[in-house]
Amino acid sequence: MAKKFVYSFGGGKADGNEKMKNLLGGKGANLAEMAGHPKLKLPVPPGFTLTTEVCTIYYENKKKYPKEVGVQVAAAIKKVEKIMGKKFGDPKDPLLFSVRSGARKSMPGMMETVLNVGLTSKTIPGMIKQTGGNERFVYDAYRRLIMMYSDVVMEKAAGIEPEEDQGIRKQLEHIMAAMKKKNGVKLDTELDAADLKELCETFKAKVKEVLGKPFPDEHMEQMWGGISAVFSSWNGKRAISYRRIEKIPDEWGTAVNVQTMVFGNMGDDSATGVAFTRNPGNGDPRFYGEYLVNAQGEDVVAGTRTPAPISAASQSEHNMELVTLEKCMPKIYKELFSFQARLEKHYRDMQDIEFTIEKGKLFMLQCRIGKRNGPAAVKMATDMFKEKLITADEAVTRVTPAQLDELLHPIVDPKAEKITKPLAKGLPAGPGGAAGQIVFTANDAVEWFNKGKKVILVREETNPEDIEGMRAAEAILTARGGMTSHAALVARGWGKCCIVGCADVHIELSRKTVVVGGKELKEGDWITLNGTKGAVYEGKLAMVDASEEGTVLEDFLKICDKVKKMGIRTNADTPKDAAKARFFGAEGIGLFRIEHMFYGEGSDQSLFLLRKMIMSNTLEERKNALSELFPYMKADIKATLNAMDGLPVTIRLIDPPLHEFVPHEEGKLKELADSLKIDMNNLAKRASALRESNPMMGHRGVRLGVTYPEVTEMQARAIIEAAAELIKEGKKATPEIMIPVVCTVAEINDQIVIIKKVHEEINKKFGKKVPLLIGTMIEIPRAALVAGKIAESAEFFSFGTNDLTQMSFGFSRDDIGGFLPDYLEKKILPCDPFQSIDEEGVGELISLGIERGRKTNKKLKIGICGEHGGDPDSIAFCYKKGMNYVSCSPFRVPIARLASARVVVETRKK
Amino acid sequence: MAKKFVYSFGGGKADGNEKMKNLLGGKGANLAEMAGHPKLKLPVPPGFTLTTEVCTIYYENKKKYPKEVGVQVAAAIKKVEKIMGKKFGDPKDPLLFSVRSGARKSMPGMMETVLNVGLTSKTIPGMIKQTGGNERFVYDAYRRLIMMYSDVVMEKAAGIEPEEDQGIRKQLEHIMAAMKKKNGVKLDTELDAADLKELCETFKAKVKEVLGKPFPDEHMEQMWGGISAVFSSWNGKRAISYRRIEKIPDEWGTAVNVQTMVFGNMGDDSATGVAFTRNPGNGDPRFYGEYLVNAQGEDVVAGTRTPAPISAASQSEHNMELVTLEKCMPKIYKELFSFQARLEKHYRDMQDIEFTIEKGKLFMLQCRIGKRNGPAAVKMATDMFKEKLITADEAVTRVTPAQLDELLHPIVDPKAEKITKPLAKGLPAGPGGAAGQIVFTANDAVEWFNKGKKVILVREETNPEDIEGMRAAEAILTARGGMTSHAALVARGWGKCCIVGCADVHIELSRKTVVVGGKELKEGDWITLNGTKGAVYEGKLAMVDASEEGTVLEDFLKICDKVKKMGIRTNADTPKDAAKARFFGAEGIGLFRIEHMFYGEGSDQSLFLLRKMIMSNTLEERKNALSELFPYMKADIKATLNAMDGLPVTIRLIDPPLHEFVPHEEGKLKELADSLKIDMNNLAKRASALRESNPMMGHRGVRLGVTYPEVTEMQARAIIEAAAELIKEGKKATPEIMIPVVCTVAEINDQIVIIKKVHEEINKKFGKKVPLLIGTMIEIPRAALVAGKIAESAEFFSFGTNDLTQMSFGFSRDDIGGFLPDYLEKKILPCDPFQSIDEEGVGELISLGIERGRKTNKKLKIGICGEHGGDPDSIAFCYKKGMNYVSCSPFRVPIARLASARVVVETRKK
Repeated sequence: MAKKFVYSFGGGKADGNEKMKNLLGGKGANLAEMAGHPKLKLPVPPGFTLTTEVCTIYYENKKKYPKEVGVQVAAAIKKVEKIMGKKFGDPKDPLLFSVRSGARKSMPGMMETVLNVGLTSKTIPGMIKQTGGNERFVYDAYRRLIMMYSDVVMEKAAGIEPEEDQGIRKQLEHIMAAMKKKNGVKLDTELDAADLKELCETFKAKVKEVLGKPFPDEHMEQMWGGISAVFSSWNGKRAISYRRIEKIPDEWGTAVNVQTMVFGNMGDDSATGVAFTRNPGNGDPRFYGEYLVNAQGEDVVAGTRTPAPISAASQSEHNMELVTLEKCMPKIYKELFSFQARLEKHYRDMQDIEFTIEKGKLFMLQCRIGKRNGPAAVKMATDMFKEKLITADEAVTRVTPAQLDELLHPIVDPKAEKITKPLAKGLPAGPGGAAGQIVFTANDAVEWFNKGKKVILVREETNPEDIEGMRAAEAILTARGGMTSHAALVARGWGKCCIVGCADVHIELSRKTVVVGGKELKEGDWITLNGTKGAVYEGKLAMVDASEEGTVLEDFLKICDKVKKMGIRTNADTPKDAAKARFFGAEGIGLFRIEHMFYGEGSDQSLFLLRKMIMSNTLEERKNALSELFPYMKADIKATLNAMDGLPVTIRLIDPPLHEFVPHEEGKLKELADSLKIDMNNLAKRASALRESNPMMGHRGVRLGVTYPEVTEMQARAIIEAAAELIKEGKKATPEIMIPVVCTVAEINDQIVIIKKVHEEINKKFGKKVPLLIGTMIEIPRAALVAGKIAESAEFFSFGTNDLTQMSFGFSRDDIGGFLPDYLEKKILPCDPFQSIDEEGVGELISLGIERGRKTNKKLKIGICGEHGGDPDSIAFCYKKGMNYVSCSPFRVPIARLASARVVVETRKK
Repeated sequence: MAKKFVYSFGGGKADGNEKMKNLLGGKGANLAEMAGHPKLKLPVPPGFTLTTEVCTIYYENKKKYPKEVGVQVAAAIKKVEKIMGKKFGDPKDPLLFSVRSGARKSMPGMMETVLNVGLTSKTIPGMIKQTGGNERFVYDAYRRLIMMYSDVVMEKAAGIEPEEDQGIRKQLEHIMAAMKKKNGVKLDTELDAADLKELCETFKAKVKEVLGKPFPDEHMEQMWGGISAVFSSWNGKRAISYRRIEKIPDEWGTAVNVQTMVFGNMGDDSATGVAFTRNPGNGDPRFYGEYLVNAQGEDVVAGTRTPAPISAASQSEHNMELVTLEKCMPKIYKELFSFQARLEKHYRDMQDIEFTIEKGKLFMLQCRIGKRNGPAAVKMATDMFKEKLITADEAVTRVTPAQLDELLHPIVDPKAEKITKPLAKGLPAGPGGAAGQIVFTANDAVEWFNKGKKVILVREETNPEDIEGMRAAEAILTARGGMTSHAALVARGWGKCCIVGCADVHIELSRKTVVVGGKELKEGDWITLNGTKGAVYEGKLAMVDASEEGTVLEDFLKICDKVKKMGIRTNADTPKDAAKARFFGAEGIGLFRIEHMFYGEGSDQSLFLLRKMIMSNTLEERKNALSELFPYMKADIKATLNAMDGLPVTIRLIDPPLHEFVPHEEGKLKELADSLKIDMNNLAKRASALRESNPMMGHRGVRLGVTYPEVTEMQARAIIEAAAELIKEGKKATPEIMIPVVCTVAEINDQIVIIKKVHEEINKKFGKKVPLLIGTMIEIPRAALVAGKIAESAEFFSFGTNDLTQMSFGFSRDDIGGFLPDYLEKKILPCDPFQSIDEEGVGELISLGIERGRKTNKKLKIGICGEHGGDPDSIAFCYKKGMNYVSCSPFRVPIARLASARVVVETRKK
């Protein structure tokens, strides 16, 4: 038997079904399913699909078809004719067809379509008769056919590649425009039947003149021309570049769907519409849609008429006064309603439906899984799970992390954004949207904020002294820095909107002005940031707050928790952040940065004491400063341990190079010099000795602990004593001490001796055994390589992927602004490695680290606490590599819960 | 049969031989060899060796001996008695013994010795008689025995661990001092027989009082006490810590050598001496040594009498007037001469010999391979190879790289250094020694140099603007920076003495003073540096120039070349350096840093144009600056290609972050602003935009090439056109373009497109095919991990181990001064990883890189061009990993030739 190349559908039957998307394309498979599935059997205009295999053979075979194709198409036409009781090419009652593409994956607008195939000088009179003498309707259809066909089929087949605006279609449009001008009318619809008839003749003459061939007046020639044009468009320029971006393989090919034409513009008993089984804008479970009486699909899209709501549930303030389909055609609405209910139940997901009513008869033209926004996705997944329509596994795959993120922050109103051109683009460092007035200094930000103003802090880059201003600002915009620069880290930690590394921002601080993408703005001017996209807009754009659906979100995340297997911790440095993270569902703290007690509100005294310690000249001076600092540190740690109520808290020993804490202000320096009883000169010398050429690779982390054992000793004492006090008070505390910047096991061993000694002392002093784990960051490439040895001493690993990425690539996160944009644009890197783990390089170090660590220490607990811990792709990677937990900023905890659930389903499938 | 625990030697026989070092220890094995080998049969005082196995069993068995040991010792004593015709403990003619340690590996001074064993109240009278009534001699021997024995044997056995200066020995020394004071004499030798006799009695009483036991008056008790004391000293504190440092396993144990006492202090027919079969100070092949008439070994060491030369060849200005052994005892000298000749021929290496003449009879007390300095080692290896005494393989193992290095630089006179305490120590960054007057600025260095003064430039750290001053200085001393800091790199490149990271150096530039290790020095004061050790001395120490032996060195390196298998290239940036390196034997340039044309002499105009390029605001401005720069660059490259005469020259495209070239001086900035027709404000802005937080990981290397393709294009054109011009002139040129700082293959591919286009253009223009390889540095950890992909595009890899070490460890080479000294002291790192490749971490990345690179590109050429390329251990590592070549600074080329020969022999052995 010959191979089957053509699959028919219609009349309650279909050769194919929904599972055959690879062969029939998405559209063809869904048409077959709707038409043929026993539980659906919907009224689909009959037709047939030429498979994607035909496309492949067509290209392999120098654009020729296997001869069976012709035979099978003829047979398929016969079947349609039988169902419809009409004949293709019949002068009396002609059947018309549409010819459309349909690839495995939707490629909207990338390939060609030809409608009204079968209109010829022979069939036009019959068509007029069949439409009750509607000559205008038929000639309008004919001129559309000529315009489309001459462009899509004939010009392309002739191999003509005209300059833009010089193609046949444009030339025909000029003719039509000239006629409208001559007749003194503006709209196409104002041309009458005679005009259109004349136009068709002029068109055909022009086509012959320009393309050297007459417009085909034979229905089968039109049909094959259309089919070939669709197959050819698979290798059109637009389609090829789209495939390259979307990574769709060239060899997939497209199917071609040939379907009976139905018309929603045949009078007031005709209509066309688009509907969704649930509201795609908010997830409301009621049927939702729009329609237009006496119209074609193009008219809905064109926007010249306002579509009416199909039902009361679909009404909005813009279409309130229009009659619903439910009222206007109650019988048809009921039928449509039952169809949609069947479809959703059958597909077990919200469906996007196109329908046409031709002279009182309902046809289903298309169904597919409907697109939806974030809040709708979360609501639908949660509702459908509760309705038992879908499983927990399915529910988590129905919401992307990006959709969930929409619920967590106010965002720029998408409608407002659609019609506004951004002034500039930067790196999307903190999510959500914000509008505010420009200020240029942290002090101004605080001052304006205190006056009740909304401000956006615009800086070259930020540093720890800007913290208060950053807190006061609605959002932060910096000209420099990458995804893990200071501004980005702080903003993400707070869930605050932030754009960094925006190279088109040029600040002139002295004049308090900034040039953004060529436009000069001054202090007080309004701008709007979309921190999810990295777009900067002039003026004050509207905001929408999608985060109201609190309980739905909670319910949804509980579903995620049923599925996920990895622990989710948070990076939190204060009791407030800890509480916030627990509210979002964090199961512990994966990164408490001890040095953060020296930044921000209420840190003045402890920062002063730290600075005193740093500037000490002798061991004795340093020890004195440390013992003054001790009670502050203990209290700070105790508060967070208490807030976590016995959940594990990983406390990282002091990490940054000391120079980072040296004050820049004259006043602070003076105070410090006085307190140390040294002169400013001497202090300046000590400060300058601390300065480093590449502080990121300088005297920091465990290196400080090795050179100043007393600093480690004091920190260990503060941590363990804080825990001991809580335990004594009858509370719970589970501290874990984490040693940063380790590159060899000898460093850990050196520090463990100090910590264990303190631990034993405190156990004895309090008469309680304080639970304690001692572990290490793996953030230096060498540490990953020698992880086997390190794991002999460490009880846990936490991958610090920020630094690991910096050193694996040799990319300073503060300096990548100079080249990363070029790297992304030239596709030298597929994405910013500080945003999503570079699996090929950094990922291999992580793999090696885990493998080697677990080999020597089977009980080793492994997590991640870099910024990647909140990135869905990276979370998936961490799960696949066997990590026990990820840790991320409080606002990313929900995303992490979702992402870690999704990867379980994804890997289970395989 | 019982296990053999005791090996006898003497009387022309020996149970053991030289191959039994593991069992008999080094000393015991050599004594056996000298005494027993048929070709030697030298007059060794007879004795026996208790094996290292006895030591092991002794410790395993709670310090008890297997009973066979007692039996075998008794038998061995009998044998000695028979040979000597004397008896141990015989009141008439007593035999005396020495008891000495002797481990597998020499542990000088770490274990105990007891001499004169066998002197008791019973044997003393007989001994006096046998020495012709020399009572003083015998009581002096007796008081020495009591002092040694009570300390080494009795106090230790009693388990007493006295405070320092409180031990029994000290107490006895006090008694002796008191007696000398009472008698009004100063020297021990001024005490007469009666004094010494009285002293022995007082000593014995004191011993009993303090240690609670009488001094043993029984010869066998003394013998066993001595043996046990030596075995016990294997686990003495000093010995244990020595073993830890030298990595000698504890389980090796020591042997004990018991040997007949012979006395060189029995009158004018007695003598003692030390000799070498060749001169250890310069390699002169004539027999060389010193002796003292009527003296013991201790007297030679004590230095109270000047030893006399054994022969004319051993004479120096210090001992010219003393009678040689050759003249004084011609017969004995002849005998000794024939013994040494036999020994050298037998051992096939220079021997260090101890001998004693007792009453006209020559005894050989010890022989071992003699230590020698660098020039001597090279000369001996070369001579012995020519004499066919040794093979080429052996010759290269006879010279260590450190010894060879001594020949390449003037060094501080070791004699002067021995008696001078350094003011401070830093990192040994540039080899050799230098003395000069302190200056604090590069300008001063040049000015003083021009006045004919020798200066040492003392700086916090150096930067490219100091180049001229560095060149003018004899040596460079910096307070900061590591082994690959700017100062270190430049100095090593020039073979100039340099010490960096000397934390004890505190400069006060305004007063032109510096405090070095607590001592304040001012401009113009003399200091001396030993750059091989990192020691800083006050004042002007004597220098010796070891580098005269040019032809010997050349001959020796030719022997190395016979053995080595790896290519040796050099890092050279100028025709002068290239010529120097070729003179030293370089086979190509492995690293020509294109940016070095902007430093140093005659670079003013090209540096100015580079700066102009950097400060350009538009592509057009930049292109103009580039085309102005082009002829300078081409000329520079052409000169070096020409100097290498067709040998391959690897040219690295511009590497440092551009900010490094921004001028610091006001004047230069003004000039630049004028030339660019912009104001200073504008220029400052542009300069500040280039500033980076961590420039080492910033916008540099290939990242510049990606963002400014025109910069790559110009460099490629300069390189290829320079080669094309030479080829057209009938000369040879083999350029290789190396792309630095690569982390992904996409970067190389991006650059290759640019370079190949230029290559084709020039081939066409000149009508010649210019040979060209395009390769990459592997200096970023990620590059090593993805080397397989990179090798698909790169034709060669050159490991840039400086940066690879920086990023693998996260150590900024400029900032490690803050913690590296502590790391080395606490043994957290075994050595400075910038000096010798860290095989565990960085080495693994290199292994992965080579393995993966060769897997996808079998023809891949692989080398190293980091500073490690001149480090012998690292060179060995590179050879073992299969590299094709190493590249190092010109002055390290001889070292590299030797090291790469030695590793061939070393790996062949296994």
